[in-house]
This record gives sequence, structure tokens and C-alpha cells, in this order.
Amino acid sequence: MRTRAAVAVAAGKPLEIMEVNLDAPKWGEVLVEIKATGICHTDEFTLSGADPEGLFPAILGHEGAGVVIECGPGVTTLKPGDHVIPLYTPECRQCPSCLSQKTNLCTAIRSTQGQGLMPDGTTRFSMLDGTPIYHYMGCSTFANHTVMPEIALAKVRPDAPFDKICYIGCGVTTGIGAVINTAKVEIGAKAVVFGLGGIGLNVIQGLKMAGADMIIGVDLNNDKKEWGEKFGMTHFINPKEVEGSVVQAIVNLTKTEADQIGGADYSFDCTGNVKVMRDALECTHRGWGVSVVIGVAPAGAEISTRPFQLVTGRVWKGTAFGGARGRTDVPKIVDWYMDGKVEIDSMITHTMPLERINEAFDLMHKGESIRSVVIY
Amino acid sequence: MRTRAAVAVAAGKPLEIMEVNLDAPKWGEVLVEIKATGICHTDEFTLSGADPEGLFPAILGHEGAGVVIECGPGVTTLKPGDHVIPLYTPECRQCPSCLSQKTNLCTAIRSTQGQGLMPDGTTRFSMLDGTPIYHYMGCSTFANHTVMPEIALAKVRPDAPFDKICYIGCGVTTGIGAVINTAKVEIGAKAVVFGLGGIGLNVIQGLKMAGADMIIGVDLNNDKKEWGEKFGMTHFINPKEVEGSVVQAIVNLTKTEADQIGGADYSFDCTGNVKVMRDALECTHRGWGVSVVIGVAPAGAEISTRPFQLVTGRVWKGTAFGGARGRTDVPKIVDWYMDGKVEIDSMITHTMPLERINEAFDLMHKGESIRSVVIY
Ligand SMILES: [Zn+2]
Ligand SMILES: [Zn+2]
Ligand SMILES: [Zn+2]
Ligand SMILES: [Zn+2]
Repeated sequence: MRTRAAVAVAAGKPLEIMEVNLDAPKWGEVLVEIKATGICHTDEFTLSGADPEGLFPAILGHEGAGVVIECGPGVTTLKPGDHVIPLYTPECRQCPSCLSQKTNLCTAIRSTQGQGLMPDGTTRFSMLDGTPIYHYMGCSTFANHTVMPEIALAKVRPDAPFDKICYIGCGVTTGIGAVINTAKVEIGAKAVVFGLGGIGLNVIQGLKMAGADMIIGVDLNNDKKEWGEKFGMTHFINPKEVEGSVVQAIVNLTKTEADQIGGADYSFDCTGNVKVMRDALECTHRGWGVSVVIGVAPAGAEISTRPFQLVTGRVWKGTAFGGARGRTDVPKIVDWYMDGKVEIDSMITHTMPLERINEAFDLMHKGESIRSVVIY
Repeated sequence: MRTRAAVAVAAGKPLEIMEVNLDAPKWGEVLVEIKATGICHTDEFTLSGADPEGLFPAILGHEGAGVVIECGPGVTTLKPGDHVIPLYTPECRQCPSCLSQKTNLCTAIRSTQGQGLMPDGTTRFSMLDGTPIYHYMGCSTFANHTVMPEIALAKVRPDAPFDKICYIGCGVTTGIGAVINTAKVEIGAKAVVFGLGGIGLNVIQGLKMAGADMIIGVDLNNDKKEWGEKFGMTHFINPKEVEGSVVQAIVNLTKTEADQIGGADYSFDCTGNVKVMRDALECTHRGWGVSVVIGVAPAGAEISTRPFQLVTGRVWKGTAFGGARGRTDVPKIVDWYMDGKVEIDSMITHTMPLERINEAFDLMHKGESIRSVVIY
């Protein structure tokens, strides 16, 4: 069949809207009509050329929602008409990682996905002249139709609006999951969130859900204060406006009469800046502080600290897709959204048709959007 | 009173055996007759001058066992005749850290202890000319008698031999505790131990107790292979003798037909070398590997890695005194030793009287001892 897509033809170039060929789903694969897709920093990272593993031409996009149109042979858990959210982290429930019960990082199709291919080592997309077009993060939601492995699709309730729940395919689950799956924040905790973009705001709402007492947001942009407060932030720090270091400011803010040591119980880096990641670790409490890296750092960048920080009880960890098992957890988060437990609508600051998708990247560069969504 | 001690008169100088003054225990303090003390790398670190917080003159030693001689006012949990092990990590059971249930790093007397003083800000030791002598790690077991806070003494059973259980005051508890308290290793795990000195061997015996399937020891010295095997090591790697990196060697060794990713479930750095700490993290399994820093790094040294290592599920943590709550856990480990569950005797490779304590440092420098113990 043919479908309409925004194709990343080369690094650093705007996406080009065009008709492309899409082959039928093979064994274990599903044809999905994408109804809406968010535009994420990760798409921008690859499109810009900064991603050393970026491949072109490709159809980017990994934050979608849609409807099953056709199932290939061997597909047993989905049928045409099912509403689905694509998962860049699949959940096969059979690989050593899935069976470990210790990680969400399913490895069933990892190697081909990393090469922009379907599990059989080929692409379903091609230019009208036959040139193959790479898949992206196993999703390619910047096409009106896409083919995906069954294990990379979460079946969700049919009454949930596509243009909102598409965000659950990335930022919402990443932020909330980092709090509840990775850090396992408990009621009464004190937490710090570095970087109040989309991920940071979702971390904040996760912290509020988890019952944190103190939710400190850190951002260089004072405009983010209002955004943070909307989602449950209790304190705001602009590192440019504190005397001394931001670490010391957080330690002071978290000290109490009973606890003169101070420090956050949990911290989350949502900036991708390795210096900030260090601050995020070092502002946590001696003895038990847990710092979670969420942001994606530039290629080759390294984090560092004195080992004394770890020996005195701080824990440094990270999270991908919020530690969520997509097929199991994403439908639950959709339910939470429909129940009003999770807020998404106000974070979708811009919507547009596919033809104007490049505007979404402009808005991101200017810092004017929290999330832009393309509605097909 | 007067007692006999090995005094560190200055950085880099041998200890000097001399008579010193020891004041009576004040409120909440206890006079202890030390019966035996181990000599540890931490003593050497301070004596050498490498410890930026080292103070002189001081009475070093932190790995002892002895008998309560006299209790100061306010002491309620100990009485003369009780057998005790000094704790450089006290357990007050009342400070925010003790009450957190999340850390063993009691802060009740941290600031004075770090300054070589008793909690009231003074020393009990002095030279015969009246010059104060600093305490060390709150213990100062290189004196035949010492004064310590009640909260820094673990009461242990009276039938346990001082010259063996003194080692439970540091290396044994640190190594075993890192496995069971900090890493919480489970039955069937695959683990790697970097550095097969005293701490490393105790990590190995902790892993064996915890039921680890694969216990890989890494050391540059092939003589350590036999030592490791004695305590339960199943595989030995000499980094100088592998092709490629030690990380790759460990990944290959831990791969199975079912799991083609490979990597250790747990790793422990017992070297204090920050490059080794990085290897220890990076050789752990994607998705769930946990690496525990035990070794003490040189002042100013920093650990580093790409944040991708954390985002893909590895956890970097550390441990001090094996995460053990001294007054609660040390008596249990003494029981385990007496029950034959923990092996210590063969690790005490040398014993000597106080007069020959400097020989213990020589043996350590030459790598000829696992542990030397002074018997008073
Ligand atoms: Zn994303
Ligand atoms: Zn899997
Ligand atoms: Zn020691
Ligand atoms: Zn305490």
C-alpha cells in the first residue's frame, strides 16, 4: 500500500512530506493506522545529526497512537480495530530480560531495531523509486500507517483520545515511571527534578501521585515555575539566582531541625547535561539518596563524581521508558489518564496536521512548546 | 590511668610504642581493655599521610576486640566484664540516619569523630607531657586501653576468641555486609569481585553464603587464585592475561545459550582504583547489574562512565562498613563465626605483640599478609 509520511531524508534537513510504499505486515507484525503522534527531543536529536546511530532516509516518530488495520500471520493478541500505542521498548515476555523480572529492557528485537529494520532484517517502508526507508525506534509514527511487531504494541481502551494518549508512548510514561518503577518514591519523600520540560513535568506529576512532601523543580528559565506548580511542584530553584551552588541550595532547603544534614531523598535529571547529572547525585541525602538519570547525554559525554558520594550511601541509577513494561503498564497509564489521575491535556500545547510537522521542531527549538502533536 | 600504645607521631613515620595517659570515661563513655586488634589498609592510608583528614599525633587502629573495664555515667547497655567490638560506624538508634531504616551511617557523633575527638570535643589520650593525642575513627585500638562512646561498642558473646573476632570490626563485616546488606545478592546470582585482598575474600565468602552460582575473582596477582578458591571463588581472571578488556572477558564468561548479552548480576570493587570501579560497573548486566564500590579511592580521584550505562539499567552504589548496623549486626556475625558459617582463622596470617606492630605494615606493603593481628 501507499501512505503519507514525513521523511527524514538527511541529517539537519527539514522533514519532507511524501507518499511512500508500505509493505504488508509479515509474520508477527501488525499494520497500524497512526491517528496522532507527538514530536519529541529524541526525534530532534536524530534529525539534527547529533545521534551517532542515526540512519537516513528514515521515518522518525516514536510517540503515537492508532488503530490496528491488519494483522500478519502468527499475531494472536491483537485484531483489526484494536486501539494501540506503539512501544519503542517492546515487551516480548519471553526473552531473558523480560523473564528476569528485573528490567523492562526487552531484547527480543533489539539488534534489528537499532539498525532501523524490522525483526527479519528488512524495512517495510520504501520511497516510490524503491529506495528502502529505515524504521525509527521500531515505531516510525511520522507516517499515517506503519508496520510494527506485535510485541511492540500496547492495546489500550477504545474511548481514550488519540491526540492525548500518544504522549503516553514516551514522555508521560518515562516521567511517571521513573518515579514509581525506577526510584520507587515513597509517601513523604523530598525530591528534586532538574529540567522542567515535558519529562520533568511528568516526573513532577509522578512525584505528586507518589505522595512526595517536597517537590523541588530546578530550571534556568523562570517561566517554568508556573508550569511546575501546575503539576505539583512545591519549590523552585533557578541556579542562576542562588548564592553558591545549586547543590548547597537544595541541601539547605531540605534541612530540618531534626535533620541537619539535608539533601533530597530522590533526584531526577531530565536535562541530558552530564554536569547537571552530577549535581543531581550530589544533592541527594547522605546514606540513602537515589539519583535517577533520565536525560539523554550527547555522544561521548561522561558523568563523574568522587566515589565517596557512593560509599556514603548515594545510589546512581538510570531509567529508560520509565522502567515500564509497555504492554502491561501503558494500558494502566491510559486508564489513569481517563480516570483523571494523570494530567496530559495542558501539556499538549500545540497540534498541527502532518504537513506542518516542521513547525513542531521550530517550537521545540524556541522553547515555546511543552509538546506538539500531529493529528492525521 | 596509664596504658601502652603505638602512637602515630607524624605522617610517614613508624608507630612509636610508649606509655600514654588515658582519662576516665565521661558521660556515655566506656573504658575498654583491648585484647587484640587487626591492622588495616585504612590505618596505613592515614599513617602514610595520604589521608587528607589525617591528624597527628594519633592512636590509630579501628579493628579490635576487648573487655569493658569501667562505664562512665549514663551508660545503660554495658557493664564491666562485657566483651565488645569497637565500631567505627556507631549505632545510636536515635539520629535521623538510624531512624531512617535506610542507612547504617549513624550521624550521632560524626563531626567530633572526624576531628579525632570524643563527643564532648576533647581527647582522652595524652602524652606523658600532657600533649593531647587524637582518637582515630572513634576507636584507637592500637592502645591496650581505650575510651569509646557506648553507642560505638557492639556487645558480643564471651566465648569468642578476641584474636579472630577483632577482624569482624572491619573487613569481615564490610565484605559480607556489602553482599547481604548493600547488594542483597540472591541465590543463583553471578558476581564479580575485583581485588582479592582481605575485603575481597570476605566478599567472596559472603557471596558463597548468599548462594551465588558464579563467583568470579579478578586480581593482577595469580597467587590470589588459591586464596579466592578457598573462600568459594569459582572463576579467576588476571586482567594481564586476558585478550581484550577484562570487561569483555567477564561478559563472555557470563553469557549463556539463553542469554547472549552477558554480564555480572553484581560486582564489587575492593581495589580503591577508580579505573577498576568503572570496569566493575560496566561488566555488569544490562538491565539489572548492580555495582558496589567498597574500596577507598585516593583523595581527589573521580569515577566516571557514560550515562548510557545507567540508563540501560545498571546501578552504581557504595557501601561503608558493609551497610551493617554495628550493635545489631556485629554480634550476629560473631555468632556465625562461632557456628562455622563464617571463616576467619585462615585469613589471620600473622600475629604479633604490640611492640612489633610496624612489622604488620611491612607485611602489608609486601603483600605477604591477608591480615595481621596484634595480641596484647
Ligand atoms: Zn520521546
Ligand atoms: Zn523480551
Ligand atoms: Zn579497616
Ligand atoms: Zn544514629
